[in-house]
Amino acid sequence: MTLSVNLNADMGEGFGAYDIGDDNAILKIIRSANIACGFHAGDANTMRRVVENAKKEGVSIGAHTGFNDLWGFGRRRIQMKASDLENMIAYQIGALQAMAAYAGEKVTHVKPHGALNNMAAEDEDYAMAIGRALKTVDPNLIYVALSGSEMEKAAERLNLPLAREGFCDRLYDDNGNLVSRAVAGSVIKDPKVATEQVVRMVTEGEIISMSGKRVKRRVDSLCVHGDEPTAVALAAMVREGLEAAGVKILPLTEMKLN
Amino acid sequence: MTLSVNLNADMGEGFGAYDIGDDNAILKIIRSANIACGFHAGDANTMRRVVENAKKEGVSIGAHTGFNDLWGFGRRRIQMKASDLENMIAYQIGALQAMAAYAGEKVTHVKPHGALNNMAAEDEDYAMAIGRALKTVDPNLIYVALSGSEMEKAAERLNLPLAREGFCDRLYDDNGNLVSRAVAGSVIKDPKVATEQVVRMVTEGEIISMSGKRVKRRVDSLCVHGDEPTAVALAAMVREGLEAAGVKILPLTEMKLN
Amino acid sequence: MTLSVNLNADMGEGFGAYDIGDDNAILKIIRSANIACGFHAGDANTMRRVVENAKKEGVSIGAHTGFNDLWGFGRRRIQMKASDLENMIAYQIGALQAMAAYAGEKVTHVKPHGALNNMAAEDEDYAMAIGRALKTVDPNLIYVALSGSEMEKAAERLNLPLAREGFCDRLYDDNGNLVSRAVAGSVIKDPKVATEQVVRMVTEGEIISMSGKRVKRRVDSLCVHGDEPTAVALAAMVREGLEAAGVKILPLTEMKLN
Amino acid sequence: MTLSVNLNADMGEGFGAYDIGDDNAILKIIRSANIACGFHAGDANTMRRVVENAKKEGVSIGAHTGFNDLWGFGRRRIQMKASDLENMIAYQIGALQAMAAYAGEKVTHVKPHGALNNMAAEDEDYAMAIGRALKTVDPNLIYVALSGSEMEKAAERLNLPLAREGFCDRLYDDNGNLVSRAVAGSVIKDPKVATEQVVRMVTEGEIISMSGKRVKRRVDSLCVHGDEPTAVALAAMVREGLEAAGVKILPLTEMKLN
Repeated sequence: MTLSVNLNADMGEGFGAYDIGDDNAILKIIRSANIACGFHAGDANTMRRVVENAKKEGVSIGAHTGFNDLWGFGRRRIQMKASDLENMIAYQIGALQAMAAYAGEKVTHVKPHGALNNMAAEDEDYAMAIGRALKTVDPNLIYVALSGSEMEKAAERLNLPLAREGFCDRLYDDNGNLVSRAVAGSVIKDPKVATEQVVRMVTEGEIISMSGKRVKRRVDSLCVHGDEPTAVALAAMVREGLEAAGVKILPLTEMKLN
Repeated sequence: MTLSVNLNADMGEGFGAYDIGDDNAILKIIRSANIACGFHAGDANTMRRVVENAKKEGVSIGAHTGFNDLWGFGRRRIQMKASDLENMIAYQIGALQAMAAYAGEKVTHVKPHGALNNMAAEDEDYAMAIGRALKTVDPNLIYVALSGSEMEKAAERLNLPLAREGFCDRLYDDNGNLVSRAVAGSVIKDPKVATEQVVRMVTEGEIISMSGKRVKRRVDSLCVHGDEPTAVALAAMVREGLEAAGVKILPLTEMKLN
Repeated sequence: MTLSVNLNADMGEGFGAYDIGDDNAILKIIRSANIACGFHAGDANTMRRVVENAKKEGVSIGAHTGFNDLWGFGRRRIQMKASDLENMIAYQIGALQAMAAYAGEKVTHVKPHGALNNMAAEDEDYAMAIGRALKTVDPNLIYVALSGSEMEKAAERLNLPLAREGFCDRLYDDNGNLVSRAVAGSVIKDPKVATEQVVRMVTEGEIISMSGKRVKRRVDSLCVHGDEPTAVALAAMVREGLEAAGVKILPLTEMKLN
Repeated sequence: MTLSVNLNADMGEGFGAYDIGDDNAILKIIRSANIACGFHAGDANTMRRVVENAKKEGVSIGAHTGFNDLWGFGRRRIQMKASDLENMIAYQIGALQAMAAYAGEKVTHVKPHGALNNMAAEDEDYAMAIGRALKTVDPNLIYVALSGSEMEKAAERLNLPLAREGFCDRLYDDNGNLVSRAVAGSVIKDPKVATEQVVRMVTEGEIISMSGKRVKRRVDSLCVHGDEPTAVALAAMVREGLEAAGVKILPLTEMKLN
């Protein structure tokens, strides 16, 4: 049996005259794009452009939904009513669906951004609110959820297609949770180490925690970054390493999920 | 043969803690709602609420697309690239489609707001940009266009369903264009006069211009306002007057268009 | 010795075409206005208008600074770097100073809004960040701080003029903190009860807690609300009650502070 | 008698996580900085940072006021009431004044941005609205106005300090107006040609129009750009050329104006 995994990345995070990240370079490495939808970043122009470019590269399209916080780039934790959040998520997905029509494509997954992703990983209300938005707008949408998080549980409870997400460049603790970036050494910079970690995740379904323990962690999709030249290089090497280990890199739409 | 006409109104034009207009009163009078989509006004909450209320009243749902100018409430003329405008219109329609999913409803028409409506009535580039957005997102969307405007021509050129719009409470000039609000007496306040004008429009396909001339003007939909108690009252009386004249008031989706 | 107290209220919280609250009614009751500065609400027009109206009524002018969260009306808790917050507060004060120039007036106090006020009451970093902004922009600015809060301590530490704030319409617990609005009965609706509470605060320097205990709480300024007709009426009655008890109602600029 | 001229540039035009232009490189070349104030670009953080860096370089500080159009980067023409515009300009100046306090500096000039600059050059109402804002907030503020424009007239009518602005890298027509960028060859790319033009402007008070005519054009300040590496290089060479011709490069505050 051939093993497979998805690579995803956040894109289209400019706004108006502003640009950030090297979308074109990263589109050649990943197979699924999380496209900002105009709340924490992105606008109708960036959305259309990325959708069209993603199509050319055979990359599947997802909504990278965030808080309505352009100034904070969606990185500030905001406390709000879950029902308000749900409506905002639905709105963003719909907006991207319309832009996807320009490429004759469909939106097939949703991945929350930044502080919202962090909060929804821990908070059942947020995780469920996001899930309900998916369910209402299109119950076939894949919920990209940090493996082991409240989002994973929400997707299961709502019977949504679920892609468990892992990280190439972050260490995990003994419970399988990400070690905070604040902890020295928690961010992996060595491509070899990153590749080893993800190959193990995909082939063994486990990670080696920061303290050296084996922890089970199923992963369907790996998040890579394109915001710095070094990140793009790391992503490319991780992909090569996976392929060298016989792992196929697929769009989320071709992955066997749940 | 029974004559028919549609009544439409702009709604859902609050934002966050702010509210404006009496949506619930006007929903009982009209048959098609133009719902603000978060650019000149409106947000995911107002969109969902109005969609749900419109459904209860049997009112069809449309996108009231505007400039990205919340502060100016979409009433400031903005010069921008037509392709940027097109993308913004598509985005807004998509956002409303997602919120309409909460009521199991579809977005069936689009009507531009405020300064955008005024500019697109005169400017072929803007009128076509709006039309292309409709065509891409859903070619069955009805383009609500000021009768005799560039928008009407754009809808025809793009083979889009077209609803020619007229006004109850505004006088027309000899070319069938609206007399500017700046001209004394150009706004009709007497419900009897307003009703006479619209009954003539619907039954005779013509209006009497400010100078007294008969001018041909086909009208499928009449715009009423809900932003002031007097406007709601006028709308109610116009509706009664039309019904008394044997005219059926229909949603845009039941009108025979083009 | 004559006792005195200040009455303050939040104002100018509209935005563009939107309006909220009855500023003109409340301006006749209070002596110090907290004017929204364009972040959680307010814009250059509302700021200028309220400044000019406040001057006519002899009401002193303050900056009602909030999170950059118009959609949330500044009521959502946002976690951000204290240094970013500090800069945002300074920015808002400066903006209001410019608008005050239209009335030949000065900004003389600062009071945080909504979620920022709640967070800064508990969080030393936020409380100090706000204080540093005042200190930099104008060290004579009065810091209006919930009595007993981290803001009070910050003002003292920074040697800023300090006005300890109390509430007419809220019950306190045995520690002198406000009982959450979520607790049944914590919001006082009876003007007689509200007046008794504030007269006691001003004349005795204490409140009777929800459980009936006497708690020391010095108060220089009382916050009233103008967002509902009943709130305006309550504010007027509280003012009458205070005056009947021989308490003078003064602008913050005429109060003996610290 | 030593000739002198000012060099100015637009800066601080990032927003939140976004950045644009190389402020630090350009700060070493110019003597007056036009700092974006949070409307078309910029935020409290960028304003503070640029103010502090400008101080270190001995560069004088001005408000680069624009339309409230972050998405459009202030480059879209917007029609609005002159009184609304005036208030927005005052607001922006005040905000920068507060941030300047962090460096113990004062805001000493104002230069409109992008589409607002273009419109105010031609439109008396806009030009006067901007001037009235300066006059109210601080009548010592220098109005940086395109030489020969409505802004120049407005500054004179309002008795405001006036700096007539010219361009290094743009050709002029026979009336002394800028030739539109749309015209082929209207943008000067050759640093030698740019330097010749500005040396002539400063030493002779005239320019050679595109058609070869000598046209009188007094210039106190020259605008350079820092948004591209080539622009920074051109600015540096223009400065060298001016100094080689014996022209002193001064901050606006040290120029002999009016």
